[in-house]
Order: sequence, then C-alpha cells, then structure tokens
Amino acid sequence: MSFHGLKMLYEGKAKKIFEKSKDEVVIYFKDDVTAFNGEKKDSISGKGKINKKISVFFFKILEEKGVPTQFIKDLDETSFVARKLDIIPLEVIVRNYTAGSFCKRYGVKKGIKLKEPIVEFSLKDDELGDPMICKNVILSLELVDGDILEKIEHYARKINEILTRLLSQSNIILVDFKLEFGVKDGNIYLADEISPDTCRFWDKNTMESLDKDVYREETGDLVERYSEFLRRIGL
Amino acid sequence: MSFHGLKMLYEGKAKKIFEKSKDEVVIYFKDDVTAFNGEKKDSISGKGKINKKISVFFFKILEEKGVPTQFIKDLDETSFVARKLDIIPLEVIVRNYTAGSFCKRYGVKKGIKLKEPIVEFSLKDDELGDPMICKNVILSLELVDGDILEKIEHYARKINEILTRLLSQSNIILVDFKLEFGVKDGNIYLADEISPDTCRFWDKNTMESLDKDVYREETGDLVERYSEFLRRIGL
Ligand SMILES: Nc1ncnc2c1ncn2[C@@H]1O[C@H](COP(=O)(O)OP(=O)(O)O)[C@@H](O)[C@H]1O
Ligand SMILES: Nc1ncnc2c1ncn2[C@@H]1O[C@H](COP(=O)(O)OP(=O)(O)O)[C@@H](O)[C@H]1O
Ligand SMILES: [Mg+2]
Ligand SMILES: [Mg+2]
Repeated sequence: MSFHGLKMLYEGKAKKIFEKSKDEVVIYFKDDVTAFNGEKKDSISGKGKINKKISVFFFKILEEKGVPTQFIKDLDETSFVARKLDIIPLEVIVRNYTAGSFCKRYGVKKGIKLKEPIVEFSLKDDELGDPMICKNVILSLELVDGDILEKIEHYARKINEILTRLLSQSNIILVDFKLEFGVKDGNIYLADEISPDTCRFWDKNTMESLDKDVYREETGDLVERYSEFLRRIGL
Repeated sequence: MSFHGLKMLYEGKAKKIFEKSKDEVVIYFKDDVTAFNGEKKDSISGKGKINKKISVFFFKILEEKGVPTQFIKDLDETSFVARKLDIIPLEVIVRNYTAGSFCKRYGVKKGIKLKEPIVEFSLKDDELGDPMICKNVILSLELVDGDILEKIEHYARKINEILTRLLSQSNIILVDFKLEFGVKDGNIYLADEISPDTCRFWDKNTMESLDKDVYREETGDLVERYSEFLRRIGL
C-alpha cells in the first residue's frame, strides 16, 4: 500500500507508518481497534480521525513544555508527520490509579489512588503477550542502556505531571497510560500516540470512562465517548 | 492432624508447619510434589527426607556465614525446628543462568549465563498464580518497608554467592533458586526450605538437572536425581 506515493514501512494494529524521507515518517491513524492482545477486533468509523487529533494536541503541548517528541507537523485529518525513530521495544506504563491489568494481576480493587505514580515496563512483543519486565531485567538483557532507561522514566513522570494537570482542568482524571519512546542520532524522543486507545481517562465526577475501556467492556459507544473527550479538552 | 501432639498451623503443597511453642515451629517435609502451580501433583516416597536433609545442610552453612536463618535444630528424618516467623508474602528468585519461566516469559534461550545475578520478586499468592512484581510496586502496595526490601535483596545476593561457591566445588551449577523470608521481633530471617524443589542445580559437565525439572519435564527419576545431588555434596 502507498500513501500519496509513500512506501509503507509498517502496519500495526492501529496505525500505518509511511516513509516520507530518510528522517521523517507519516503516521496514519486507522479506524481499527483491538483489545485483549488482538483477540477482540473491530473497525469503528471515525476513530482514527479522533485519535490523530488528540495525539497531535498532546504532542504539541508536551514539546512546548520541554519533552522531546517525534512530532514535526500536522498533515491531514488522519495523519501527521513525525521523526523516523528506532523504537525502543518497551511499553512504558504510568499509573496514578489502580485499573486494568494491574488490578487483575495483583488482586487489588479498581480506582484506588496510588500514593505515588508507578512507572512500569513491558517488553513490546505481541507474540509473548507484552510481558511485564522490571528495570533490573531490562538492564540485564541489555534492551536499553542505563542512562536511556533513566531518561525514559524521567520523561514518563514529567509527561504524567503535565497531562494530569492539564486534564484536571477539564475535570478528567488521568488514570494510567502507555508510552513508547524511540531513538534518533543518540537522542530519545516520545513516539507513537497518546489517545483514548492508550490512556485511561475518567470523568472526575461520574468516574465514567472516556477511553478504550468502553470498547473492552462494551459499556458505551466508542466514537461518542472519544468525541466527548475531545469536547471536554476544548477541541 | 497433630505431630507428637503439636498443633498444625499450616499445610502447604510440600510441607506442614506445627507449633512447638510461641516462638518455635516444626517444619515437616512431605513426600508430595507439585508443579505448574499445582496442576501436576504426585507423592514420591523418600522426597521429604532428602529435602529436609539438604535444607538443614544449607541453613547451617548460611547461618555460619552470617545469614540470619529460621534454623534452630535438627529433629528427625523429615523435620527440623525453626523460628516461628511472620512470612513476608514474596517469593525472592535469584537467577544466575536463564531457565524456566524467565525463558518462557521473555522468549530467551535456556542456559545463558547472566552478566550479573538477577533478583526477581513474585507476590506469594497461589490464586493469582504468584505474579511477578517489581520493587517499585512492592513499595507502592506497602507489602514491605523499603529497608526490609533492601535487606532481603542483600541477603538473597549473599546467599547466592555462598551457595554458588559451595556447589561449584561439587561441579554443580546453581542456576536459580527461590527464597522466602520472615520477620520476628522486627528482625528478618531466611525461612522455608532450600532444596532441589526450590532450586535449579545443573551438573557442570553434562548440564543435566539434579532438581525438580526432572519431575516437571519427566526426564528422570526424582529420588534418584535428588539422591545423586546429596551424594555430590557429600551427604
Ligand atoms: N516515530 C516513529 N518512527 C517509527 N516507528 C514508529 C514511530 N512511532 C510509532 N512507531 C511504531 O509504529 C507502530 C505503530 O503502529 P501500531 O498500530 O500502534 O502498532 P502495534 O500494533 O505494534 O501497537 C508501532 O510499532 C510503533 O512502535
Ligand atoms: N519459619 C517459618 N515460620 C512460619 N511459617 C513458615 C516458616 N517457614 C516457612 N513457612 C511457611 O510454611 C509454608 C510451607 O509450606 P509449603 O508446603 O512450602 O507451602 P506452599 O504450598 O504455600 O508453598 C509456606 O507458606 C511458608 O511460607
Ligand atoms: Mg500500538
Ligand atoms: Mg512452598
């Protein structure tokens, strides 16, 4: 497949990555949505557009606040231009409240505010089911250098502070989220997306989900909830 | 059930714990053996005796070398007297070579020597399947205090050094092992057992298992292999 004549480098579950130049890619947001490591799967018209819009919104703010991100420029309704990165094969998860796999894994109740945000890592590997991995094992398996790992954790915490504060102005709780980072010329950048597909957002008053949990748990209309999120942050 | 009139405090998968006094327990080693979180199960005559003997051997050496252990005194063929502890609900796993769940989880080859020993933790909870847990989450969930956690890791590494050196004299590789710790009067002690049920031991030359893997993988006779281990360490 090509996109305005560009070569597709990679098709993932939610996005396609096209090569724009040796340093740049176009990130195209599909309408596809999956859950439970790909077991549940659908195409929901309008999702890609919304997630692109939200991602661009967050990336611009983070870049302004001193987080180095992949973002270069907005392109069209479903795609933006980004730095072409070597993705670090780690999912970086930040948790402010207990939810999702964390509750299941440790048998704790959902919705408990953690005393301090937790930064967790998973090995990005669909075949292995993205297994959790502790920092000492990341270093032992030489997945990344120690200084890069420290930077990743530093930026993950900084992003958490920025987005938590921002969203609280819209009466939204940032419950948890997943980040990916990539490297170019020895520097690290925030990559991938930040959207209701990769975050948990709860309404501060009703505790209702404005994120992919409505799809996972079949408790609401995805596009309606994502659009409500858009509205709430003023887009 | 009672043991010479003692009250049974707890029956686990491999041992029974009897109350000897308010400060002491008798640890009785059963012949029962289980694997894969209890899915595979058998009784193998003679196993309890061997594991008791090996545990006592290791506990005595560790105590001598400055590791505070539960061990008080040997009792009979299948049991010894120990400090009654409040068990910390963590399994502490030390790995020198890749094997077992580590290989499966991260898709790495078995038998690779790690650059440095890895200390891993699991939440001791059969119902949850003993889920892996990183240090930051242990602290966040307040499972143990930070200073206790540091002591646990310190002793786990020290035990690894002592046993690795000791076993290498018998041409045995200490591949990995699981420890439990307990607390009494604010002090921490090594608890439970150290045996071929809870360690991986490989013959340095043939790389053959002298441990529970022969039962898990059905590659040999458990009592024969455990007895060979006994012989090799001079018991
Ligand atoms: N700036 C970037 N440069 C190169 N690859 C990227 C960049 N941002 C994200 N990616 C990668 O592109 C893919 C995005 O597609 P996605 O549908 O989310 O994939 P997946 O199914 O692996 O989650 C991911 O593998 C992601 O790591
Ligand atoms: N010194 C001790 N004092 C009190 N409890 C102990 C002591 N040493 C071990 N235990 C506990 O006794 C039980 C040992 O039995 P075991 O058959 O290994 O149980 P499990 O099936 O839980 O692994 C474990 O729960 C262990 O934590
Ligand atoms: Mg993705
Ligand atoms: Mg046990």
